[in-house]
Amino acid sequence: MNYKILDVKEQLLEENDILAASNRKALQRNGTLLINLMGSPGAGKTSVLLRLIAALKEEYKIGVLEADVDSDVDAKAVSDAGAKAVQLHTGGLCHMDAAMTAQGLEALGLAGLDLVFLENVGNLVCPAEFDVGADLRMMILSVPEGDDKPLKYPLMFTVSDLMLVNKIDTAPIFDFDFEAAVSRARACNPKIRVFPVSAKTGAGFEDLAACLRAALAERRPKP
Amino acid sequence: MNYKILDVKEQLLEENDILAASNRKALQRNGTLLINLMGSPGAGKTSVLLRLIAALKEEYKIGVLEADVDSDVDAKAVSDAGAKAVQLHTGGLCHMDAAMTAQGLEALGLAGLDLVFLENVGNLVCPAEFDVGADLRMMILSVPEGDDKPLKYPLMFTVSDLMLVNKIDTAPIFDFDFEAAVSRARACNPKIRVFPVSAKTGAGFEDLAACLRAALAERRPKP
Repeated sequence: MNYKILDVKEQLLEENDILAASNRKALQRNGTLLINLMGSPGAGKTSVLLRLIAALKEEYKIGVLEADVDSDVDAKAVSDAGAKAVQLHTGGLCHMDAAMTAQGLEALGLAGLDLVFLENVGNLVCPAEFDVGADLRMMILSVPEGDDKPLKYPLMFTVSDLMLVNKIDTAPIFDFDFEAAVSRARACNPKIRVFPVSAKTGAGFEDLAACLRAALAERRPKP
Repeated sequence: MNYKILDVKEQLLEENDILAASNRKALQRNGTLLINLMGSPGAGKTSVLLRLIAALKEEYKIGVLEADVDSDVDAKAVSDAGAKAVQLHTGGLCHMDAAMTAQGLEALGLAGLDLVFLENVGNLVCPAEFDVGADLRMMILSVPEGDDKPLKYPLMFTVSDLMLVNKIDTAPIFDFDFEAAVSRARACNPKIRVFPVSAKTGAGFEDLAACLRAALAERRPKP
């Protein structure tokens, strides 16, 4: 085991936490809510975003930071849907950190934005380790991935405030045990709030949008 | 952008390549074929392994290194199926590197083994960057993840020798365009060999087992 690796990592994480706190302060000052959206490749991050933008865009000004290792496929879709979007290329890195998020927020321009989504790189491991300064961490577990994922990637479930169980319409096909998935996630994090959804059919998005409205009202109380 | 991060990474990768070459030499000396099995969380790595062990265990002695961030769920299943198994905990790291693989191979004991599978951490990003000394890199793309994944995680498709398209029985449900997925993967890597399979139904495993038999025959020619 190369212990040097871990030392480097700890130092990186400390520097990251300082920058995350600074992002958080800038967001609060501006009255903007930042949501860090995480999940495996193909869990449905972009489709969930498109549903949420459709549900909330009449009431709130929404920005999106699209993080991707390399491609530009998602920024256009999100922008067409009515959000202000910036595509970030991580250049091979497997997660977003606070410094990259700060760059993204600057490029986006916070003025006038009520809500910003950061669509993180598709990965259940590393994004969980890096605080980017978000108010809410929202993770997606998709049904075809299996109900055992909280056993295998516990940190992601531990750090997340919201857990979306996406592609819920396919649960019978994949013998997915929803109750088992939830109780495994709650063993990591008793406070995690769970929303079964289907970005394909739209099921579950009213409840989720209501939850985000409540968080937004808390961030920017109506006069 | 913090350029320090990239320097650290380059140095790590150089050290890794030296250790990977040493693993490769030890494996060749012993006549053992090492396959690095990679894919997203829930792509079906363990189920694919169980099918391959069942198909090959009468002809070959098989070992498995099960890499997981934290859990032991898979080592028991693989061991029950008839392979010699070692569970490796990466302690939060999101990939296996050559040093951890060397430790795993030593714990497993190469003597008498024809074939070793390394089941990597579920992640389409970082495992692609680290050569562990494997003879073959076998990646799994599962149908529910979507046919656009080679656009988003190109390095994984570039470095892999074999691409398994798993859960192929669900292609109609997910509007998965197999030809599009293959042509996007081939744009990254024209030599990648593609096997549509279903670990659930067993479809496609005869062809895949035949491909591995050919690789094994090359590694250890019959007298």
